[in-house]
Amino acid sequence: MALSGQHWIAGRAEPGVGAAFHAASPETGLDLAPAYHDASPDQIERAAAAAGAAFPAFAAAPAAQRAQLLRRIAALLRDHEPDLVARIGQETAFGAPRVANENLRTIRQLELFAALVEDGGWVEARIDHGDPSRQPPRPDLRSMLVPIGPVAVFGASNFPLAYSVAGGDTASALAAGCPVVVKGHPAHPGTSELVGELCSRAVRELGMPAGTFSLLHGRLPATGAALVRHPAIAAVGFTGSLAGGRALADHAAARPDPIPVFAEMGSMNPVFVLPNALAARAVAIGEQLAASALLAMGQFCTSPGLVAVVDGPGADVLAATLQQKLGAAAAAPAVHASIRRGFEQALAEVKALPVTTLAWGGGGAAATAVCPALLAADGALVLREPRLRHEIYGPAMLLVRCRDAAELLALAQSLHGHLTGTLHGDDRDFVAFADLAAVVRRKVGRLVANGVPTGVEVCGAMVHGGPWPASTDARFSAVGPTAIRRWVRPAAWQDWPDAALPEELREANPRRFRRVVDGVSG
Amino acid sequence: MALSGQHWIAGRAEPGVGAAFHAASPETGLDLAPAYHDASPDQIERAAAAAGAAFPAFAAAPAAQRAQLLRRIAALLRDHEPDLVARIGQETAFGAPRVANENLRTIRQLELFAALVEDGGWVEARIDHGDPSRQPPRPDLRSMLVPIGPVAVFGASNFPLAYSVAGGDTASALAAGCPVVVKGHPAHPGTSELVGELCSRAVRELGMPAGTFSLLHGRLPATGAALVRHPAIAAVGFTGSLAGGRALADHAAARPDPIPVFAEMGSMNPVFVLPNALAARAVAIGEQLAASALLAMGQFCTSPGLVAVVDGPGADVLAATLQQKLGAAAAAPAVHASIRRGFEQALAEVKALPVTTLAWGGGGAAATAVCPALLAADGALVLREPRLRHEIYGPAMLLVRCRDAAELLALAQSLHGHLTGTLHGDDRDFVAFADLAAVVRRKVGRLVANGVPTGVEVCGAMVHGGPWPASTDARFSAVGPTAIRRWVRPAAWQDWPDAALPEELREANPRRFRRVVDGVSG
Repeated sequence: MALSGQHWIAGRAEPGVGAAFHAASPETGLDLAPAYHDASPDQIERAAAAAGAAFPAFAAAPAAQRAQLLRRIAALLRDHEPDLVARIGQETAFGAPRVANENLRTIRQLELFAALVEDGGWVEARIDHGDPSRQPPRPDLRSMLVPIGPVAVFGASNFPLAYSVAGGDTASALAAGCPVVVKGHPAHPGTSELVGELCSRAVRELGMPAGTFSLLHGRLPATGAALVRHPAIAAVGFTGSLAGGRALADHAAARPDPIPVFAEMGSMNPVFVLPNALAARAVAIGEQLAASALLAMGQFCTSPGLVAVVDGPGADVLAATLQQKLGAAAAAPAVHASIRRGFEQALAEVKALPVTTLAWGGGGAAATAVCPALLAADGALVLREPRLRHEIYGPAMLLVRCRDAAELLALAQSLHGHLTGTLHGDDRDFVAFADLAAVVRRKVGRLVANGVPTGVEVCGAMVHGGPWPASTDARFSAVGPTAIRRWVRPAAWQDWPDAALPEELREANPRRFRRVVDGVSG
Repeated sequence: MALSGQHWIAGRAEPGVGAAFHAASPETGLDLAPAYHDASPDQIERAAAAAGAAFPAFAAAPAAQRAQLLRRIAALLRDHEPDLVARIGQETAFGAPRVANENLRTIRQLELFAALVEDGGWVEARIDHGDPSRQPPRPDLRSMLVPIGPVAVFGASNFPLAYSVAGGDTASALAAGCPVVVKGHPAHPGTSELVGELCSRAVRELGMPAGTFSLLHGRLPATGAALVRHPAIAAVGFTGSLAGGRALADHAAARPDPIPVFAEMGSMNPVFVLPNALAARAVAIGEQLAASALLAMGQFCTSPGLVAVVDGPGADVLAATLQQKLGAAAAAPAVHASIRRGFEQALAEVKALPVTTLAWGGGGAAATAVCPALLAADGALVLREPRLRHEIYGPAMLLVRCRDAAELLALAQSLHGHLTGTLHGDDRDFVAFADLAAVVRRKVGRLVANGVPTGVEVCGAMVHGGPWPASTDARFSAVGPTAIRRWVRPAAWQDWPDAALPEELREANPRRFRRVVDGVSG
């Protein structure tokens, strides 16, 4: 597959016309061909309008056809893995195994949503039969989830496949019956173009409305803003920084007709190592946490960025282990030079406070290189300085040594929302620190016991989201089958002619959709 | 029960200290004692902070206790119906039967949510067992819905009981485990005080944390804004005007940590009378629609405000029937003088356009009196003038005569979101106008066939909400058991010790909660 720097607008490749930008080599920082261009206002208009025009037909297409589309995109991703390995390697320095791993995750997400819509139970069909003999007569009411409308998806920098053009947001939106307009992340436009071409091909092959999928490139805030402000767009999915997510949420809220935004904006993913665990397993826990923090050079949303303990001998062992492991790790490329700049700037802000630097080797040779950092502070300082309770995106970990259990609890209470919270402890710790666990539970989307927060299993019980600023709306998850709920709304039909009802709600139920009938789940 | 103009803040009655206002007699417009006062910043602060302080304990209370609280409030409302009848009659001119009817609805809503939390299935417990033999090992993941935090509830003017202090928003929030701070509607502060005292009594009797419930009075926008902006408030429920709901949504979106708002802001509830139905039943349909529009003097959110037909002889019959029925209806009190002012102002705006006034008797003697209005316009005018596609709150109906089926479809396409959309037709109409039905479906929360939009059945399949401006977030319903979803978020536990899990997620399931285990619903 050849790259030509094109947008994919409703099935057609279009050259860019706006401001130019390039992907950059993570090693040299030099531009990679081809040039990409921010989508023009006219291109944004046409992509969004085409999505709006496609919506009725795409939403009405049988679920089996939407599943077929998802499976076809998955198959194309599988077939074109060599192209993806080649380009992602240039744009982000990910090796072939990592690309293969992320591609497999992307494929599985697409297949998960295909299976979900084939099954049909996700629409939550409910039937409450009428009762003409009641006074007043009770009407027949039937409801199910229906797609909300075209979704604008913003690709993430850290997952060029799994949370980008054909990633979880796109898969769940298409599954729901929502056309998608993707704004690709400018750190990997070539990867976006490749995947955008594959998605466009799948739409065309299966005869779906052309506006079902579009890919726009863009680096300027105005490009994303125009997409979010477009009247045809009904919802927004985003994975990225707090500043980026907040800006899009503000645009969405300021529309004449505000629309929902699900932005997943990352976290420090606090880890609490409780006394018995610290006494028994400080080395093992330190090794485990360091390995977790070094995955993808700290660029996973669930990277552990804050580790808190009650001070004591175990804390020394944990500190020494973390220092050894993080100090020994070499600088390595982040996905983009802007990540390095942000990382080093945030690190400088934090190091201006009276924290102890236990490990940091400074910058690396590569343009995007980041070097793991381990900082330490006492609990009182962290309670005093809000900056220490905010994420440093990249391979940074802050070890917080609290005076006692009360200060550890106060630290937990001082935290804002996070995707995850982890406790290490034995059974007695979990009893003695039940209060702490309860506080952490209220701050996070997912609690982890005796493990690491990285490794987001794609399954029904996964929750990937959490209170602000982990996400813009803690009532939803970006991972797992329930991620589809972000893009659907309930609709009800009252006394509607059976033949004119959607298949899922007709009285006869030959396909045996799971439904709740007169209050009874079946 | 005596009224003294007090707020109820975390279980204590407090006199007002801010700007004074009074309820007004709907007949004379004169002030009713006692005086009420906008809650002071300090009172708002204490009510919200108390809700925040109550949240952990209230959220952790067994579901049976929350159900008990709801049932106790319901019982107190039943016991004190005479007090409610007396005061509501003074404040809003509702007769005893209407108050009894609304009180019964309020009681049933409380009991519905009590039953829901007793059953426990609503938490959507999911268990995905781990697999230590997988590489990497698959963790054990369990999730369920948990309360989001304290909810600010804004009472509605049109339902002093069912959508006010102990109405659907409060019932669903308390059921979820969220403390509630109500801002009572200034049109019926005495009713609010009565119900606020009953709620406070129930909280006290059952030993719930005092901050579980507070009632604040207020008429000034700043009072509601301060409540929505308070850091302890995690979500907002509102029923009222588009301007009011929009203002609160803007405040919520502008917080350092934006919070979700569910505002139900009313609708024109368009009705399409299709050709065969019009030919066969124009008189009956006209009578039915007029009766629906006159319920509560057009102050139900689902009042039919726009009736569209393809022009022809049937349209003349329908127009004549509506004219006769609406023209014969006498002026009668709205809930508040401000409703009359808004109604007459909106009517004047619309009458400045080239519409035909088929019925309107002008004002009435009572201070709050509104007189039913029937206006008519051709489809082209309505397509040209957006004002004609916006609600006139009160007993106004616009009959739109379209040139042909294509113009009827164009009219449907031009509409914004509404709570409901109604089609009258026979089986052939539903086939011939399937396109129209599909367009209307995308614009509304609930479709009605051959009926009226008023009469919001409280049941599982009910959807009371819809695309903007019917509500701020079409993904939720304000009525029925799913209304609880507005106030909850999913939380996951990974490899968590069984004994430390919530009861709903422990491996043994002696109470037989409905759960999805390894993908299988049980």
